[in-house]
Amino acid sequence: MRYALKIAYDGTRFCGWQVQKNGNTVQAELERAIKEAFGVDARVCASGRTDSGVHALGQVAHVDLPVSMAGERLADALNSRLCEDISVLSSCVAGDGFDANRSAKKKTYRYTMYVSSRRNPILDRFALRVDSADAEAMREAAVLFCGVHDFKAYCASGSSALTTVREIYSVNVERREDLTDIYVCGNGFLYNMVRTLAGTLLWYSMGKISKEDIISSLEEGLRERVGKTLPARGLCLMSVDYGSRGPAL
Amino acid sequence: MRYALKIAYDGTRFCGWQVQKNGNTVQAELERAIKEAFGVDARVCASGRTDSGVHALGQVAHVDLPVSMAGERLADALNSRLCEDISVLSSCVAGDGFDANRSAKKKTYRYTMYVSSRRNPILDRFALRVDSADAEAMREAAVLFCGVHDFKAYCASGSSALTTVREIYSVNVERREDLTDIYVCGNGFLYNMVRTLAGTLLWYSMGKISKEDIISSLEEGLRERVGKTLPARGLCLMSVDYGSRGPAL
Repeated sequence: MRYALKIAYDGTRFCGWQVQKNGNTVQAELERAIKEAFGVDARVCASGRTDSGVHALGQVAHVDLPVSMAGERLADALNSRLCEDISVLSSCVAGDGFDANRSAKKKTYRYTMYVSSRRNPILDRFALRVDSADAEAMREAAVLFCGVHDFKAYCASGSSALTTVREIYSVNVERREDLTDIYVCGNGFLYNMVRTLAGTLLWYSMGKISKEDIISSLEEGLRERVGKTLPARGLCLMSVDYGSRGPAL
Repeated sequence: MRYALKIAYDGTRFCGWQVQKNGNTVQAELERAIKEAFGVDARVCASGRTDSGVHALGQVAHVDLPVSMAGERLADALNSRLCEDISVLSSCVAGDGFDANRSAKKKTYRYTMYVSSRRNPILDRFALRVDSADAEAMREAAVLFCGVHDFKAYCASGSSALTTVREIYSVNVERREDLTDIYVCGNGFLYNMVRTLAGTLLWYSMGKISKEDIISSLEEGLRERVGKTLPARGLCLMSVDYGSRGPAL
């Protein structure tokens, strides 16, 4: 029977989502909990990998188990066996046709910054310290990313993606107490793409690059015209949207 | 020369403020950084101890150093040598008469909860998961604590305090996104007092105790009529107030 899971994790101590030979990963931890709970080796397939240190509040995954139970029970069975950095927020039975990766229609990431002259250890685990964050200026540049673009300049080298064209549905910049959040929603993201996009908005707001630089980075793929790729600590996968026929998570 | 420091820390991995034989503490970590920076053994004296696991955004301390420098430089000298869970937010030269503990006029603590049926690892480090948090009900009971009271019923056994009478200036309950914050401001606090007060507000909001229970806990010191002492993870020392003659932190 196929189940869908909505998962949150503090990515700080993980080497990302995907199982690796060396280093603990979110996928490995979930598969260990499944083995412990049900005695089976099952593969937990996510909507997509998250990199080392990246957090999630709404990662979605599917898993096939030779066990029939009320969908919600799976979350409890796993949570009692998971380390405190991971929690299954909800679970349900999913149709056989559901694939957490291939069925995904939209994903939303959030990149968070806080302004402080010195590091704040309470904010620092889930946000990047910056010297200034002009939300209004970031919004001016944010609209340039919306639509279908070739994000070659925003992709780390070594990516195996077949195409670097992606569609961005929205880029919103919001204030939340001392924090500045950049929400990016799109049909898919290349390796490091959100962190480089956020770095580009930050650099634009600091006057280090111009709108013309951003436009030519999208039109001509010029990597030297985009901002720095920001650290993983500020990035969080917020939600994955499967449309009206998606699982009831 | 005497210096004052404003310090923030993620208390999760510390056995509280005060130096101990076994276990890492915030005070020990600061004193190690001072030894490394200036080659001296100096005692860093806080406004008061915080317990194991308790956080701070505005702890204040003083330290005497045989070094003369611009006050702000001390923060940078220490931050480059401190672990990532502690940060000196600001520092200044303080008058010889300044004593971080004895000169303190008011302290403000915050206890934070979030409502969720399952644990959320992103919120869980600095907040307590609860099934419900009725801020309006908490506010009704919060006023009962304001003023001068004998907080004997709110003090963990084994406290060495000479008197259990304290004055509470305000108890405010505020919503912040998914979080409920209880701010408690007073002239001083007994061991576990804020955590027990917060637990009492939570129990009142859940209908487990009445206003009469709270009143008699304050008038007669009856411990069985107060709520549970809540875990350290939700508690944060927000600020210490020294009045208009305090250090310019």
